[in-house]
Amino acid sequence: ARAIAEFATARATRLKVLVEIDCGEHRTGVLPDGPELMEIAGILDAAPSVDLDGVLTHAGHSYTCRTPEEMAAVAEEERSSAVRAADTIREAGFPCPTVSTGSTPCVMFARGVTGVTEVRPGVYMFGDMFHAGLGTRNIDEIAITVLASVIAHRRDDNQLYIDAGGLALSKDRATAALDDDCGYGLVCDARTTELIPGLRVASVHQEHGQVTGDGPVAFDDLPVGSKVRVLPNHVCMTAAAYDAYNVIDSDEGEGGTEVIATWGRCNGW
Amino acid sequence: ARAIAEFATARATRLKVLVEIDCGEHRTGVLPDGPELMEIAGILDAAPSVDLDGVLTHAGHSYTCRTPEEMAAVAEEERSSAVRAADTIREAGFPCPTVSTGSTPCVMFARGVTGVTEVRPGVYMFGDMFHAGLGTRNIDEIAITVLASVIAHRRDDNQLYIDAGGLALSKDRATAALDDDCGYGLVCDARTTELIPGLRVASVHQEHGQVTGDGPVAFDDLPVGSKVRVLPNHVCMTAAAYDAYNVIDSDEGEGGTEVIATWGRCNGW
Repeated sequence: ARAIAEFATARATRLKVLVEIDCGEHRTGVLPDGPELMEIAGILDAAPSVDLDGVLTHAGHSYTCRTPEEMAAVAEEERSSAVRAADTIREAGFPCPTVSTGSTPCVMFARGVTGVTEVRPGVYMFGDMFHAGLGTRNIDEIAITVLASVIAHRRDDNQLYIDAGGLALSKDRATAALDDDCGYGLVCDARTTELIPGLRVASVHQEHGQVTGDGPVAFDDLPVGSKVRVLPNHVCMTAAAYDAYNVIDSDEGEGGTEVIATWGRCNGW
Repeated sequence: ARAIAEFATARATRLKVLVEIDCGEHRTGVLPDGPELMEIAGILDAAPSVDLDGVLTHAGHSYTCRTPEEMAAVAEEERSSAVRAADTIREAGFPCPTVSTGSTPCVMFARGVTGVTEVRPGVYMFGDMFHAGLGTRNIDEIAITVLASVIAHRRDDNQLYIDAGGLALSKDRATAALDDDCGYGLVCDARTTELIPGLRVASVHQEHGQVTGDGPVAFDDLPVGSKVRVLPNHVCMTAAAYDAYNVIDSDEGEGGTEVIATWGRCNGW
């Protein structure tokens, strides 16, 4: 409370502030029914330099769900926690225009969003292999790939190397928690973005990705210098390595490789 | 060979090119005694737009060593492979001015560098917790920390959260291979950079680091809003998340917090 009070009075610029609600993951935020909620709301409302704008939450524990029913249940926990906290704040006479929820599994399977004014799902925009595993997205709906070049053949070991390693893909291993682990990503044809059956980035070094096959790797179809695309394990961590998105038009020819736009990113946190 | 020949003739700019040597890790590069070495050297030497400048190698397998003796042995393998390849190239009448080796464990424990003209060790400059575990560096010699703020107390769980998670620290888990695993990094006093005994970043979310203690966490010494520093697990992956280094003077007062210089980084790969 002291840190919040200092923050609320120290700023010269007027800020809109949301109170974070713990909707069940027990990471950060305050409980919707606990005494800290109204203590913080009161401090913020009384502070001359901030406007109490509402509440936000993020049900990170939705990522431990494995069925749509479980995700729908967590989504309701997320929604009801935020709405309950907002109602408590309003009943005390304070403003609470924003009721913000998050987490892509919840957004995909929520039974309803009554009382919610905003959602902030991150992976939702692009999808990734972890979400394909969760069932929130089909593999052919994943909208980000990492373009890479084949740089070495290891025919004796049935492996090849690409120039996309930990720096290009991140070292996130989210899918290790799923039955169908994709390693550091699945390998696709560079033009069509169709999966090359059985090929996955099994391990990464800093700049190198080691690609293995379930069966014999078709080395002659993937000469050194040829291009592939990798469907990332966790798109948030992967995208954070780049300054911009190169946009291609999937309706162009067999998928297209021409960059038709470049979208900048907000990096940092 | 075809890809190399195309590369060597297609470039308008004159380039110096090194041939990569596989010194025992069997990742990328050609064997120092194999036929590909001279095939590639001949193509490069004959190409009008490139200069054959020499050989390079990187003994990534030095990271699997656990004793100085093992690292010294791999260092000699790294050195002798590169020098042997260079000698073969020179004996055929081609130039080979550069003989380049790498890998920090090898540089720290090499018995000699005869015939080597350049080393390219990455972690060497800064050190990290994996290298402290390998014994190539003392913890108090690690020259990079991530500055973070305490953002939440979880007294019931003896945990606190900082605003440095996977994006700030990377998700590299190199030390998981060591007896003494530091999680995602050890937590230090922000001013003195001395370790806070028992505190480590046990897990990370995207923007949040979960800090646990071997014993009871001293919450009152680390109020919400206070600063800590994290000694990273793998400095290469961690530093890649930043555009620049903020340089502080460790001789100033109790360690100093004033940024006396900002050093830019070359990002990408």
